[in-house]
Amino acid sequence: MSNVYGRMLRVSTFGESHGPAVGCVVDGLPSGIRVDLDAIQRDLDRRRPGQNKLTTQRKEADQVQILSGTFQGFTTGTPVCMLVQNTDQRSGDYSEMERLYRPSHADRAYDLKYGFRDHRGGGRSSVRESIARVAAGALAKQILTDLFGTRILAWVQSVETIDANVSDPSSVTLEQVEASLVRCPDPASSSAMEAAIFKARSEGDSVGGIVRLWVDKAPLGIGEPVFDRLEAELAKAMLSIPATKGFEIGSGFSGTRLRGSVHNDPLAILGGKVRQTKNDSGGIQGGISVGEPIDCRVAFKPTATIASSQDTVDILGQPAKLLARGRHDPCVVSRAVPIVEAMAALVLADMYLVHRSRSGLYPVPHFEATP
Amino acid sequence: MSNVYGRMLRVSTFGESHGPAVGCVVDGLPSGIRVDLDAIQRDLDRRRPGQNKLTTQRKEADQVQILSGTFQGFTTGTPVCMLVQNTDQRSGDYSEMERLYRPSHADRAYDLKYGFRDHRGGGRSSVRESIARVAAGALAKQILTDLFGTRILAWVQSVETIDANVSDPSSVTLEQVEASLVRCPDPASSSAMEAAIFKARSEGDSVGGIVRLWVDKAPLGIGEPVFDRLEAELAKAMLSIPATKGFEIGSGFSGTRLRGSVHNDPLAILGGKVRQTKNDSGGIQGGISVGEPIDCRVAFKPTATIASSQDTVDILGQPAKLLARGRHDPCVVSRAVPIVEAMAALVLADMYLVHRSRSGLYPVPHFEATP
Amino acid sequence: MSNVYGRMLRVSTFGESHGPAVGCVVDGLPSGIRVDLDAIQRDLDRRRPGQNKLTTQRKEADQVQILSGTFQGFTTGTPVCMLVQNTDQRSGDYSEMERLYRPSHADRAYDLKYGFRDHRGGGRSSVRESIARVAAGALAKQILTDLFGTRILAWVQSVETIDANVSDPSSVTLEQVEASLVRCPDPASSSAMEAAIFKARSEGDSVGGIVRLWVDKAPLGIGEPVFDRLEAELAKAMLSIPATKGFEIGSGFSGTRLRGSVHNDPLAILGGKVRQTKNDSGGIQGGISVGEPIDCRVAFKPTATIASSQDTVDILGQPAKLLARGRHDPCVVSRAVPIVEAMAALVLADMYLVHRSRSGLYPVPHFEATP
Amino acid sequence: MSNVYGRMLRVSTFGESHGPAVGCVVDGLPSGIRVDLDAIQRDLDRRRPGQNKLTTQRKEADQVQILSGTFQGFTTGTPVCMLVQNTDQRSGDYSEMERLYRPSHADRAYDLKYGFRDHRGGGRSSVRESIARVAAGALAKQILTDLFGTRILAWVQSVETIDANVSDPSSVTLEQVEASLVRCPDPASSSAMEAAIFKARSEGDSVGGIVRLWVDKAPLGIGEPVFDRLEAELAKAMLSIPATKGFEIGSGFSGTRLRGSVHNDPLAILGGKVRQTKNDSGGIQGGISVGEPIDCRVAFKPTATIASSQDTVDILGQPAKLLARGRHDPCVVSRAVPIVEAMAALVLADMYLVHRSRSGLYPVPHFEATP
Repeated sequence: MSNVYGRMLRVSTFGESHGPAVGCVVDGLPSGIRVDLDAIQRDLDRRRPGQNKLTTQRKEADQVQILSGTFQGFTTGTPVCMLVQNTDQRSGDYSEMERLYRPSHADRAYDLKYGFRDHRGGGRSSVRESIARVAAGALAKQILTDLFGTRILAWVQSVETIDANVSDPSSVTLEQVEASLVRCPDPASSSAMEAAIFKARSEGDSVGGIVRLWVDKAPLGIGEPVFDRLEAELAKAMLSIPATKGFEIGSGFSGTRLRGSVHNDPLAILGGKVRQTKNDSGGIQGGISVGEPIDCRVAFKPTATIASSQDTVDILGQPAKLLARGRHDPCVVSRAVPIVEAMAALVLADMYLVHRSRSGLYPVPHFEATP
Repeated sequence: MSNVYGRMLRVSTFGESHGPAVGCVVDGLPSGIRVDLDAIQRDLDRRRPGQNKLTTQRKEADQVQILSGTFQGFTTGTPVCMLVQNTDQRSGDYSEMERLYRPSHADRAYDLKYGFRDHRGGGRSSVRESIARVAAGALAKQILTDLFGTRILAWVQSVETIDANVSDPSSVTLEQVEASLVRCPDPASSSAMEAAIFKARSEGDSVGGIVRLWVDKAPLGIGEPVFDRLEAELAKAMLSIPATKGFEIGSGFSGTRLRGSVHNDPLAILGGKVRQTKNDSGGIQGGISVGEPIDCRVAFKPTATIASSQDTVDILGQPAKLLARGRHDPCVVSRAVPIVEAMAALVLADMYLVHRSRSGLYPVPHFEATP
Repeated sequence: MSNVYGRMLRVSTFGESHGPAVGCVVDGLPSGIRVDLDAIQRDLDRRRPGQNKLTTQRKEADQVQILSGTFQGFTTGTPVCMLVQNTDQRSGDYSEMERLYRPSHADRAYDLKYGFRDHRGGGRSSVRESIARVAAGALAKQILTDLFGTRILAWVQSVETIDANVSDPSSVTLEQVEASLVRCPDPASSSAMEAAIFKARSEGDSVGGIVRLWVDKAPLGIGEPVFDRLEAELAKAMLSIPATKGFEIGSGFSGTRLRGSVHNDPLAILGGKVRQTKNDSGGIQGGISVGEPIDCRVAFKPTATIASSQDTVDILGQPAKLLARGRHDPCVVSRAVPIVEAMAALVLADMYLVHRSRSGLYPVPHFEATP
Repeated sequence: MSNVYGRMLRVSTFGESHGPAVGCVVDGLPSGIRVDLDAIQRDLDRRRPGQNKLTTQRKEADQVQILSGTFQGFTTGTPVCMLVQNTDQRSGDYSEMERLYRPSHADRAYDLKYGFRDHRGGGRSSVRESIARVAAGALAKQILTDLFGTRILAWVQSVETIDANVSDPSSVTLEQVEASLVRCPDPASSSAMEAAIFKARSEGDSVGGIVRLWVDKAPLGIGEPVFDRLEAELAKAMLSIPATKGFEIGSGFSGTRLRGSVHNDPLAILGGKVRQTKNDSGGIQGGISVGEPIDCRVAFKPTATIASSQDTVDILGQPAKLLARGRHDPCVVSRAVPIVEAMAALVLADMYLVHRSRSGLYPVPHFEATP
């Protein structure tokens, strides 16, 4: 397993769905951050199960507790451990999953890799693992906001075949997103998505969707070519979230169908600054942030655990039928929104610290020459 | 910069387009590999500029030289340094790029980050950097072939709006791919793609496309949840290649429009083995390879450097018009094919070594219980 | 801060002396280890304050709790989080350390680096931090014992000017070490050391000493030249323990005074195996373990916090006199013994996993040639 | 193998004694360093074999060539590859080492670990590997000098039983060190050491010694507790140099015999600054540099390869006698001096970049309170 993310800002996560707790240790934080516990809890609440009728009905307060790394309300530069207790486990619901592999689920993969697994609630492959990401990400968000006024916002762009109509992404607000149960800022689409999710659930089925990530005022010049290009790190971070199947930045896959003369983002002087006149690049050039909004999409497949009969095999390699019980989200994208934001925040904060370590140390010829 | 990739198999790359040489150091190799220099050269030749009329006409032999790490034809476990000399530099062609930023190119980003840059031929952001990836990847491919019979094959799936028709990806052969100038195994589409590329070039323009990656017989059980899931590492590796805008695995973005009951890959006993009856998952479950083919797509934008006039700014922040000279590929996807394969090989070999470090050390309850 | 140790077996630690808890997350464990909670607790008890009259009188049960990573008593391959609550904090004792820097202590260094610090009980620089090392090390010890029968034993070799007389290190037992309050297996020296420690304490002073580490049956062939030589990793691990000033392996500093003809360890066939006839090398050649006992010494300075008046400055940079209150060990070496063992175990287990990742993959010419 | 050192400043090294070349890739450099090729060559010349009558008579110019990472004399932030060709190989001298293991040498260890090895000149375990360290270290030195005026100086403190008399380490100059063939700034001791080395060589034997490292004006506040304490990184770096057996900082092993009241370094106001009135700590408190000189010693054993008959075994496990031919240093410490300096520079520069990444980001309460 590899449960540590980051170079300079390193997050170690731990915990299973039906163990005593889940949490994380965040190492490499600067000292002096006035920790906003409410902001951390707010993001955890957006991720929380049972928050509304669209999500799994597991009831968890997901109350975060800080065990280390702060003094008088500020970070001291030492590791911050954050812990959330598990309370509403119903292991009985999962007893058949001890024996039967869920199709398109981590169950069998874990057995292949580790020889056995904690099957209760999916164990480590449960989405409860993402609590640690969201808590750590909230700290990272705060750093970015404090230092750059960065705004990291994600929302549901599509559910099943319903696409949101968001004409001006930079004007979308957190309030608009949170006003929707689905977390889609386009009210008409939101209602349709809600209906689609209910329909799928009532039919013992699930649906997928796309989350869009939009970052304004990201730190400038971050991203480390050639291997740790900013879009590469974002892609990794997003594909590390369970149920993801794709990542796009800027024009993405549709941009492959354009000519260079159309796709290239011209440079011009706007408001006294060098800016692109459009942003098919998605805010990154050559692996480096250039001051335009960062614009990505992340594809989430339909939830694997469904309440319909499926062909599968058991742990002894015999064919079987599975009708999953347990409490599951019929669609993960609404709860994935804060997770996508958290992972983006962790990438950006970490990449900023990496960039800061060696940037601006020497005067450089070009800037010396600049009038 | 971050020019080191991998945990156990670590590749350090270096070199600029118009410097003396480009190359890499591969650390963490097992001892005893009978190094196939021809195979390395073969992949480098597939990546080489000037290989046919579709690519840039820069002439480089790209002859690889091994400086360390082998003895009597075998790896010794010490680092292998591979070097390729640069010979056909024409820096004069790039003189205006010293002053003018190419739209949607790394030029300005490097200045933002580093204060100045080697503008000749794009310096480090040149695709010549990928020589190191291909050379290292060829070694990684060999390990995977030697140990698992792994077959890593990529091809051009689309160019501009032309989509290849590849009904059975597992039957595509390297010969079919290489028989096409475009590296598309569907002859009809290949011709159309070729025409599209010529047309774009003749119009001073460029086109993009999609490369498909198909891996048979990947090592089983590799990928390290939660942060180093196999698809996450693949996504990062692919998005670290210049000009990429997206990554998909299995059903990808289109899978988000399906129901779970349709998307889930049922398990069954086929040929005496547990297999999926289909593979919308793309060969990975829960971040771990499960014995099905790994199936990904990578989106490449149209080449940024085009021979048409573009609006831009100069390094002093003044508006300007750029008409790029220099020798450039009107479409990068054909030459990207061996780069995609190389990055896949580096990911799989590295992840295998990571997995191997701790797998099978203890008997585990489940397998003990298995009859 | 950097609170993560290891490549394949990664330990993240956290916690301050007067915070709610200290602990660690151990990532990269193999699955299937039958976790011996008693063994972990036993090592924690050896490290515990207040265990006898020689140590600080802070009373802590230091009861370890496992929050994740095990199922039915076995590790699952997922991260193991271990937690110890802090209970007997007396922050009042440290109030003057908020204002006054202790000479030769981390107090001022933390302020220089982080701008401020949790002064209570030394905060993160408290020896309570080592609880996490000991807990993680106990797991590492178990792996080594399970797989190789490795025996990692440390003891007090000297206190102040009193040197233990240990003629045959390989015959020293844990029982002998634990029978001594000082953890010195030579009873006569142990009594003298005990007296020296009492005398120092009664005089408001402290003493230092040397801990010897002896490892039998370490895994063979571990250590990664050139930078991660086994002795280099051991040196780092030991010097990461608070209060250490030196590290020696084999002949150490005294070996520098010998001739090569005397210092070299001849090879011979003993008991049917290739062995050294002596071990001035300390069990490592060329950075790699060779099957002989690993023999190191670690130097610990006298405890910095003493109950005598000292010249110092305050946090505003004014000269001051410090007479430290609080509960402190007059000599750290006895409690350092399990910490030294733990760090050795973490190094060896991690280096073994690294080695295992790529060893034995290919048949190699030499062994093929061997009859 | 692990041939990569550093977190932010990462050095990858490669090359064998009798291969075509040795070298390194330095990644993570800031842009804008005016590379001083003469300074790099100067340190390589200090390390060079055959530089005087005390060293091995292998003749190598060790001329360094830079292949990447600079433009118009400045670093661009991209990786710098430095290469040195091997020219004076005499593999015939080593033919018996293909078959016979040198006692206390890496020969057998490499066979144990890798199954076979390049025996010519010691292959990767040759001291030629250190060329890469010295070249990379020279760049690191330059960064430290440019930014902080740091002075990193090492010298030979003892050879066999002869100890140099250096009363004021901070007044030792590079010129004094280089004026001595042995690199001992105390002329009387230098002559005696020279005689001891000649005597050992004439008797087919070798001697060891101690190198002292003294760093003035190291960057303040560097070192990352708890695991990457500055002394821990220095210990690792030094013990990664071949033939080392020990590391001490400040009072080292002798400090263990002192009382805390004597050992503690009092703080006072000297010259308007907070200073220690003495420096038994060796410049580091709590793992962090505090503005005092960094003072370490490194123990080097006598050279293992000697021209006297030794008992050993051959690669088939048969007893044998070895009388080594080849050209070897009778004492490594003089040539180790620039290697020790280089490793110190790499540690300090890397730790500085790590520290810089997150320091000073937030105002902190303490400094706000300071008048």
